[in-house]
Amino acid sequence: MADSPNCDLKSLSPLQLFERVTEQGEKVRALKAGKAPKDEIDAAVRMLLSLKLSYKTTTGQDYQAGLPPKDLVLINNGTTKEEDEDLVDPWNVQTSNAKGVDYDKLIVRFGSSKIDTDLINRIERATGQKPHHFLRRGIFFSHRDMDQVLDAYENKKSFYLYTGRGPSSQAMHVGHLIPFMFTKWLQEVFDVPLVIQLTDDEKYLWKDMTVEKAYEYAKENAKDIIACGFDINKTFIFSDLDYLGASPGFYKNIVKVQKHVTFNQVKGIFGFTDSDCIGKISFPAIQAAPSFSSSFPQIFNGKENIQCLIPCAIDQDPYFRMTRDVAPRIGQPKPALLHSVFFPALQGAQTKMSASDPNSSIFLTDTPKQIKTKINKHAFSGGRDTIEEHRKYGGNCDVDVSFMYLTFFLEDDDRLEQLKQAYTSGELLTGELKKVLIETMQPLVAAHQERRKQVTDEIVKQFMTPRKLAFEF
Amino acid sequence: MADSPNCDLKSLSPLQLFERVTEQGEKVRALKAGKAPKDEIDAAVRMLLSLKLSYKTTTGQDYQAGLPPKDLVLINNGTTKEEDEDLVDPWNVQTSNAKGVDYDKLIVRFGSSKIDTDLINRIERATGQKPHHFLRRGIFFSHRDMDQVLDAYENKKSFYLYTGRGPSSQAMHVGHLIPFMFTKWLQEVFDVPLVIQLTDDEKYLWKDMTVEKAYEYAKENAKDIIACGFDINKTFIFSDLDYLGASPGFYKNIVKVQKHVTFNQVKGIFGFTDSDCIGKISFPAIQAAPSFSSSFPQIFNGKENIQCLIPCAIDQDPYFRMTRDVAPRIGQPKPALLHSVFFPALQGAQTKMSASDPNSSIFLTDTPKQIKTKINKHAFSGGRDTIEEHRKYGGNCDVDVSFMYLTFFLEDDDRLEQLKQAYTSGELLTGELKKVLIETMQPLVAAHQERRKQVTDEIVKQFMTPRKLAFEF
Repeated sequence: MADSPNCDLKSLSPLQLFERVTEQGEKVRALKAGKAPKDEIDAAVRMLLSLKLSYKTTTGQDYQAGLPPKDLVLINNGTTKEEDEDLVDPWNVQTSNAKGVDYDKLIVRFGSSKIDTDLINRIERATGQKPHHFLRRGIFFSHRDMDQVLDAYENKKSFYLYTGRGPSSQAMHVGHLIPFMFTKWLQEVFDVPLVIQLTDDEKYLWKDMTVEKAYEYAKENAKDIIACGFDINKTFIFSDLDYLGASPGFYKNIVKVQKHVTFNQVKGIFGFTDSDCIGKISFPAIQAAPSFSSSFPQIFNGKENIQCLIPCAIDQDPYFRMTRDVAPRIGQPKPALLHSVFFPALQGAQTKMSASDPNSSIFLTDTPKQIKTKINKHAFSGGRDTIEEHRKYGGNCDVDVSFMYLTFFLEDDDRLEQLKQAYTSGELLTGELKKVLIETMQPLVAAHQERRKQVTDEIVKQFMTPRKLAFEF
Repeated sequence: MADSPNCDLKSLSPLQLFERVTEQGEKVRALKAGKAPKDEIDAAVRMLLSLKLSYKTTTGQDYQAGLPPKDLVLINNGTTKEEDEDLVDPWNVQTSNAKGVDYDKLIVRFGSSKIDTDLINRIERATGQKPHHFLRRGIFFSHRDMDQVLDAYENKKSFYLYTGRGPSSQAMHVGHLIPFMFTKWLQEVFDVPLVIQLTDDEKYLWKDMTVEKAYEYAKENAKDIIACGFDINKTFIFSDLDYLGASPGFYKNIVKVQKHVTFNQVKGIFGFTDSDCIGKISFPAIQAAPSFSSSFPQIFNGKENIQCLIPCAIDQDPYFRMTRDVAPRIGQPKPALLHSVFFPALQGAQTKMSASDPNSSIFLTDTPKQIKTKINKHAFSGGRDTIEEHRKYGGNCDVDVSFMYLTFFLEDDDRLEQLKQAYTSGELLTGELKKVLIETMQPLVAAHQERRKQVTDEIVKQFMTPRKLAFEF
């Protein structure tokens, strides 16, 4: 059975394999030192060689005594960083570079794969649709196993989407929309069902907030998410505090994950300490479990082992590295991932937007006037100090937040390219670029507000009711 | 709100109070050293004195710098012991004394109260019933707040009972019946509802067992529990794996407990290490949550803050010491407890019976012949080596397992006293005492088997269906 600890070598994680090789090496040395019979020593040596081979196959590296697998060092160091490295984990994003986090380096550090032109072309062929501008512009830039998802999809084997949000306050900002806008597109072009987790339990555990308040925020946030236009027949939105007590399969998967992850591991991955509450320590299993379709027996009509694809910002990757490590050991398929870059704060790309600082973001509740004022007052400019200098040397799109925002929200590729040229050459001034952004964001936010108004409590209830989704696997 | 960390002094645990006194002491020293204004120093000193008073009221001890509260040392050392102390925690019971664990010492170490004659008399007055022989004979020997439960009961404020079992194998032994026999009596004489937790998730986490197998054991064990004769209209039996996904209130209480207990604390209480899986680390909250009636909205018709009384063997006390520490901080009443001694193995009272060694126990599935053979072959005797010596010096009831078993299962006080006299004087031989035990256990087990046969899957399903119990609070 999948749950048995006496699993075969294939289901061992790199660290477990490393430990097995080390143990076997010690055993061989002990046998030799104790002058054991030759055939016993030979058998132990054969086992050692076989373990070393498994280790190399799994990690792509030769076993070196005392040196744990490199991939694992990465997995276990999601929160640590070298001197000049960016800090990226589910609670912190920090970089000293005004252009933002170095995403190529992050791909190497996290051990994920770059979304390259080939993959984008494959998505276009598989769906028959022009790739979303988030793909064309490298906003979703990294993935895990997306090629395998496409292999299966081309062979008529479908998948489901899973994304989520930690509902920390009533107002969401435009950056929060990025994964949802992209997920909506994926749902449409692949025609697949979707589950959206609202981690109100996480917010209760991390913040000074009651259970009731966290659940209230979850329902409020659900309205903004629904306003993105998800298909009610193919989308299930759930609050952990609610759904954990309403699903016969969710807790079973949580406890399976919890059995296969030690405190040492979550300490390495998430930086937890002995002073953290046991709720935080066990929470990663709750974000992991929706990666397995058996967590949703009502939703998928009892169908298990459906492939899961998770679009998310790359700071959430540590949860899913852990999930992918555990999945084979509990007999579940590994979820695939699509990672986005971070949405920059108005003040600059060194940090992620924060819902707690109203001036760091354009909120979905902002009036046209507020949007105008915020952009004019706070959007970090890559322009020059004087008009003369700007005309002469041009602006720097790489650090200009208005331009960055336009790459997220201005869908017209030609227009964006024109703006870039004009700004870089000095033809377009900072104020003019900001005006374009204001004129882009005002109708976008207003349209969102209009759609949100249509989302009644009754509609929220429908989305959040466990029920079979309109899709057959 | 109850969840706020800014709670008043009364809701602080002994350790938190200790830390507050220490901090305030440092503050006073700093103010004096910095020659702060006199009124500021005076105010700080007044606060210090008030904190010290709260500390003394809560712990019964004077504050001593550098010496954490004695009660807390106990609370945080459930698993450690001094040289000559008995080891008692949820997974181990060990003593070097053939008479068994020294329960008087345990009461002092755990900080509970002895069930004395006064309390037994109060129970008799409150219920109008002769106290159960488990009370009369000191088998339930220790309690927490039972006097408060009786105060309330006498003022027409009722309570509910909560007990449980970890279903580790299909067959239960007679020792497993002790808490259930007593709980059944409590249910009858107090006329109160009862919830019984089957911690199949715990067994999955601790043992080499699948989720499915653990759940199967839970349902099998439920049959033996039901065969004890619980009132189907007033008893709810639940498997964690099942009920956690079926209750809107259970997980909310679990996550509240999990927020208020750190890894440091469970490390101290249960001896967990960094290598333990995160499931074990967070499990104590799952055993804690049924102490709060809001975990059972369907069962108690949404009524919250009903007093809970937990009859259990004393090895389960660490879970509930933790629960009682957390309860006021999450706005819940502390559960009261009634603790039983351990049921001895046939081989002697140094250890608890084990379901994994068939010869250590009389199982509820044993035939009359098996019972006879086991008792004759394995029951440790307090008799002398030869008949002559036995006649001359008499047997020792304090270490004789057959006699101990009779104190559990022979209800007739006069008969038991006669046996004791006769055995101690040497008049009764070991074989004769064993014969009495065999004749007591055979019909008892046979009657249990007969009742168990009547327990159909349909009846189990009824007991395990969340539904309003027939009781109004």
